[in-house]
Amino acid sequence: MYIPTYEDVAAAHERIAPHIHRTPVLTSGFIDDLAGAALFFKCENLQKAGVFKVRGASNAVFGLDDAQAGRGVATHSSGNHALSLSYAAGRRGIPCSVVMPRTAPQAKKSAVRGYGGKITECEPSTSSREATFAEVQAATGAEFVHPYNDARVIAGQATCAKELVAQVDGLDAVIAPIGGGGMVSGTCLALSNLAPDIDVYAAEPAQADDACRSLKAGRIIADDAPETVADGLRVPLKELTWHFVSHHVADILTVPEKDIVDAMRLIWHRMKIVVEPSSAVALAAVLNNSDVFAGRRVGVILTGGNVDLGALPWKHH
Amino acid sequence: MYIPTYEDVAAAHERIAPHIHRTPVLTSGFIDDLAGAALFFKCENLQKAGVFKVRGASNAVFGLDDAQAGRGVATHSSGNHALSLSYAAGRRGIPCSVVMPRTAPQAKKSAVRGYGGKITECEPSTSSREATFAEVQAATGAEFVHPYNDARVIAGQATCAKELVAQVDGLDAVIAPIGGGGMVSGTCLALSNLAPDIDVYAAEPAQADDACRSLKAGRIIADDAPETVADGLRVPLKELTWHFVSHHVADILTVPEKDIVDAMRLIWHRMKIVVEPSSAVALAAVLNNSDVFAGRRVGVILTGGNVDLGALPWKHH
Repeated sequence: MYIPTYEDVAAAHERIAPHIHRTPVLTSGFIDDLAGAALFFKCENLQKAGVFKVRGASNAVFGLDDAQAGRGVATHSSGNHALSLSYAAGRRGIPCSVVMPRTAPQAKKSAVRGYGGKITECEPSTSSREATFAEVQAATGAEFVHPYNDARVIAGQATCAKELVAQVDGLDAVIAPIGGGGMVSGTCLALSNLAPDIDVYAAEPAQADDACRSLKAGRIIADDAPETVADGLRVPLKELTWHFVSHHVADILTVPEKDIVDAMRLIWHRMKIVVEPSSAVALAAVLNNSDVFAGRRVGVILTGGNVDLGALPWKHH
Repeated sequence: MYIPTYEDVAAAHERIAPHIHRTPVLTSGFIDDLAGAALFFKCENLQKAGVFKVRGASNAVFGLDDAQAGRGVATHSSGNHALSLSYAAGRRGIPCSVVMPRTAPQAKKSAVRGYGGKITECEPSTSSREATFAEVQAATGAEFVHPYNDARVIAGQATCAKELVAQVDGLDAVIAPIGGGGMVSGTCLALSNLAPDIDVYAAEPAQADDACRSLKAGRIIADDAPETVADGLRVPLKELTWHFVSHHVADILTVPEKDIVDAMRLIWHRMKIVVEPSSAVALAAVLNNSDVFAGRRVGVILTGGNVDLGALPWKHH
């Protein structure tokens, strides 16, 4: 297993810079008052394709040699990695095949097709996803780019925290949502090299808390398709992300479903930005854990903004 | 009638800098392709209080001497100036009274109260609004800060275009929505001094097109409470804004209601930001007038993001 290094992160940043936004960091006096902390929101919802995963996907796609690239890329994903890989492949002009659960949000499927990705649907379980993918890969011979258990992807995601510490001085902690652990691993990789005094926290839906239980147990615990409104966070840790999580994460904080939706609406209402439920998990964790965060300068990574605007998780009149 | 100068704008910017955000400029490759132009969105929806009007209100409030300030400030407004003046007065710790139409969005009334403003309701017509306001002002002795027909306010709004030309090189045109004309006047004031080759366009709902008809007629035409989804744009031009509009605006482009809602949803969907319908009028005008904008570098001022998230103008399932 190859563990990516900070040199990989620096190379990734140079490679992907023409294809990504250097996303802004926003603040909200109102939310700071609620949290009793100074929060710096790194807005990856404003990233190309609406999600941080474009960083890792672009690093993988633009790092391929021409022969590999000619056979295209393939992946399985609950949605955001699928559209990120489709975006990156489209930028390079190579084919992209993705396996997505049939229950994935329509908005994400449409976005994948909009970027030129070819979708094969599977059942919404890890087992079905992996079986369907094996068939697709055998048929195409494409290069597999795993959504997170891939050194190229983690080095790409790490460019987000690299930008954040260049944009904000004196951070005490950074928190990001955790599903498979790609963003959290990239954050650990960047910060352990650039600013090792910054504590890295992960935030997870209580209904999909396998990463939290893994950290306590000292080994990967994988659930098959847990249910949560944070649809990007249903997947389990794998060997490479487990390496970073088990070595560098200060703690994994879990939050109930209602608090995720409340935090999502709070961000929309006060910050005037569109974030998906997975993004709101990190803020919900900060608001619920003032013992950890009060009085500190905290970077909060808002991971994405791909929601179905016609199916929001609150009442309409 | 005192016409504000560029010196007033520079002084305003210095005065209000501690109280406002220098808002980011965002771009969207997808929307550029639709428009056939390079669009630079100045995101005043990400401004304090969710709207550009905080600039003008802060300039008026922080420019008062202590004796004036002690008697507080008062205004009438369809919503955004009310909450902006409440925000600025709250920052200075002085009272703020506002007259708002009873039909103003609940989200805006709540925001006014949240910032400490005291609301008196009126009927949704210019005549009722002005009559009610006269009573409130007589009772309080507060300093009147008109939402747009005020040199302090226009000098404050002008700081937005001043920032925009510092953030983006080589703009050919700037477009902003027009209601009473405060933002458009500030844009004319800043650009006629800083970058006189940039064309200033205004965008207006076809159902509330009194500014467009005024420009054609060569005199102010004022409608009483026209109906449009762009609730911030129902008010008429006044003498001071007419001065800037009649001297500096290249054209006023009108757009149908459906195109306003479509442009609003397009911005939410592709740019992942929350904008109110008034903001979307400018993009709708750009998309509908490729003869004017194609191939050009265009600044698009997104004026605000204060919407009721439980009452969006599209279907939910």
